[in-house]
Amino acid sequence: MKIAVITENSQAAKNCIIEDALKSVVEPLGHEVYNYGMYTPEDKAHLTYPMVGLLAASILNAKAADFVVTGCGTGTGSMLACNAMPGVFCGLVIDPTDAFLFAQINDGNAIAMPYAKGFGWAAELNLQDCYRKLFEGESGVGYPKERAAVMAKNRGVLADLKAASCKDMLTVLKSVDQDLLKTAVSGERFEEYFYANSQDEEISAYLKSL
Amino acid sequence: MKIAVITENSQAAKNCIIEDALKSVVEPLGHEVYNYGMYTPEDKAHLTYPMVGLLAASILNAKAADFVVTGCGTGTGSMLACNAMPGVFCGLVIDPTDAFLFAQINDGNAIAMPYAKGFGWAAELNLQDCYRKLFEGESGVGYPKERAAVMAKNRGVLADLKAASCKDMLTVLKSVDQDLLKTAVSGERFEEYFYANSQDEEISAYLKSL
Amino acid sequence: MKIAVITENSQAAKNCIIEDALKSVVEPLGHEVYNYGMYTPEDKAHLTYPMVGLLAASILNAKAADFVVTGCGTGTGSMLACNAMPGVFCGLVIDPTDAFLFAQINDGNAIAMPYAKGFGWAAELNLQDCYRKLFEGESGVGYPKERAAVMAKNRGVLADLKAASCKDMLTVLKSVDQDLLKTAVSGERFEEYFYANSQDEEISAYLKSL
Amino acid sequence: MKIAVITENSQAAKNCIIEDALKSVVEPLGHEVYNYGMYTPEDKAHLTYPMVGLLAASILNAKAADFVVTGCGTGTGSMLACNAMPGVFCGLVIDPTDAFLFAQINDGNAIAMPYAKGFGWAAELNLQDCYRKLFEGESGVGYPKERAAVMAKNRGVLADLKAASCKDMLTVLKSVDQDLLKTAVSGERFEEYFYANSQDEEISAYLKSL
Repeated sequence: MKIAVITENSQAAKNCIIEDALKSVVEPLGHEVYNYGMYTPEDKAHLTYPMVGLLAASILNAKAADFVVTGCGTGTGSMLACNAMPGVFCGLVIDPTDAFLFAQINDGNAIAMPYAKGFGWAAELNLQDCYRKLFEGESGVGYPKERAAVMAKNRGVLADLKAASCKDMLTVLKSVDQDLLKTAVSGERFEEYFYANSQDEEISAYLKSL
Repeated sequence: MKIAVITENSQAAKNCIIEDALKSVVEPLGHEVYNYGMYTPEDKAHLTYPMVGLLAASILNAKAADFVVTGCGTGTGSMLACNAMPGVFCGLVIDPTDAFLFAQINDGNAIAMPYAKGFGWAAELNLQDCYRKLFEGESGVGYPKERAAVMAKNRGVLADLKAASCKDMLTVLKSVDQDLLKTAVSGERFEEYFYANSQDEEISAYLKSL
Repeated sequence: MKIAVITENSQAAKNCIIEDALKSVVEPLGHEVYNYGMYTPEDKAHLTYPMVGLLAASILNAKAADFVVTGCGTGTGSMLACNAMPGVFCGLVIDPTDAFLFAQINDGNAIAMPYAKGFGWAAELNLQDCYRKLFEGESGVGYPKERAAVMAKNRGVLADLKAASCKDMLTVLKSVDQDLLKTAVSGERFEEYFYANSQDEEISAYLKSL
Repeated sequence: MKIAVITENSQAAKNCIIEDALKSVVEPLGHEVYNYGMYTPEDKAHLTYPMVGLLAASILNAKAADFVVTGCGTGTGSMLACNAMPGVFCGLVIDPTDAFLFAQINDGNAIAMPYAKGFGWAAELNLQDCYRKLFEGESGVGYPKERAAVMAKNRGVLADLKAASCKDMLTVLKSVDQDLLKTAVSGERFEEYFYANSQDEEISAYLKSL
């Protein structure tokens, strides 16, 4: 699985903690991590949490990655921004049980975590445990497993509902504030990571044209 | 403030705990509570979490209430469904500090809480504490207050982003599975509460026409 | 390692959940579980949380087990009772990181967990994760490991302090309310589990004499 | 009520956050705060967590204060040290519901909180909420109140149990490592706060004699 990391400006200093924790868990499982930054608070590309939503949605809708690991101070801003976008189903994960249940019940494609609120000493341990629950096994198998069919059905209804309420991604990209979008995709490694992995010609072409 | 309570089917048995906790806190503060159900697991109107999103969005977009208090087993399903809808900004709240920060930083119009995961003995105390943080004072004033302007600006950007990505509510109502929508608005007290408080003629007319 | 489970009366109905979660994690690791009950709320031997302290201390001081897993509604009553006893160092564990840090930093011989407060749906997952952190590897190695020596030193100072403040276990057994003690050791399987594993003749003899 | 604050060396830099949060809540309620330090990591009196236990027990047994607010990185070391001492009943408090239930059910005389683990941005809000639950009303009235009598009875049994297992405080003071004790009572304001408030001549005399 390709996993993208996106870190919003207020928590940019923790990007390396997040990347380290994630890689330590998921690389041995065979997953690949693409760290889209911000890498430090001094990065030129200054990602606010609304931009996180745009960037995550670009990556996921273009299938440049299968999953986005993001967050902000409380996790809520980035979660709201992600979930405002078509095709993004972003959970707010605080502890390992949240991570497990989100993977098994909701089977979404993004998580936001709080990287300031509740993020104290040894918080890297919780990050690792959460990532393990998300990425160590098959997701979407339900918990308890007897309820798998009902849970899968509700996911389908939610996906249909979201498809009915949101515009398609290309339209969204064209509709949003273009300066906001330009900044959202201005990260140092965006070009390298995104265009090599995108499976959507139109989204790629549009973003390149900016 | 008018506060709507929406309880999804798996946690319907806890609707009265939620209503009691909410009323005990917010009625002395001068707010009104509209309990849209489900009231018991046996209710005829069987609300799944995607329907929670439709119902919450109908209420909020029609201004039939100012705020929606909802949730499900982990809170995540209902949160995802709410955030899939235009004009809904739904936080996932687990503890009183979450509630306070959501009110002050994100200033959304809905919360989802977990009513099964982590919901043990004395959980009504945490509900009360969370509701108090949400509804006791002015929201959106920032935390810390020195950051109020930046936080307000980001909320505006998020609102614009969501407006660009979502269709308007009337279009959404017409686009979604009409059976799903009919069930979402079939609660015992929906008519009484919704039409008396709705400030949007078109949404009211469309829902009445179903 | 021999691990004793002790469940206080108010949470007796959850004894099987605790035992199942513990065995599922620790038996594959080669540890043995001794469930001292209560097994159901209807058990004749009615263990209150002060008795949990007496029973845990008897087991640990007699080396009939190496570790005690206990708890009560909030965990606090049983934790206080355990820590009131000589030779017992009982942590309050709520999440997996607590469990890990307690094992690595404090290296105690008992934990209390809340089995009512915060104990909702899927709580068995958190139990398993906590037990895994406690019992899967070597404990007392410090976190971070660079601090191992300081942490070990403080544990030694604490052990000396406790040895100076508490009477020895045999004296405690003789000093406490003898009816309380009799009930504490009246569980259905106490005789079978305790006397076969005790390595302290005097404690065994005294308890047998009751 | 007289409330003593004791901060262990690893978290000394947060002493002012703790004092500020505590005073902001309890002074308007008419309580007095005595901050025994450490005040900064550079203090001459270097309090390790075992010393926290000695200091807290000296204060509580001499009735120089009614309640001790302490903690350490995870809260566990200081909690274990406090509970190793005669007459100290120290809860581990993480959230406001913990604080409320500890006050109402266990009615102890000390709390330890984690000041590193889980202590992130806005943690001062949680401190305030916890302190409010502890100190705003009458404690020991039970939760739910119908269970007050059983809860009070168990507290009495626990107190008797601890009295039977621990030596009296004066004996403990004479039995422990005297260098450890000297350091424990060497804080900058110990003399000023302790001797003016102590109601136990023998403990005062012994500590003065060191």
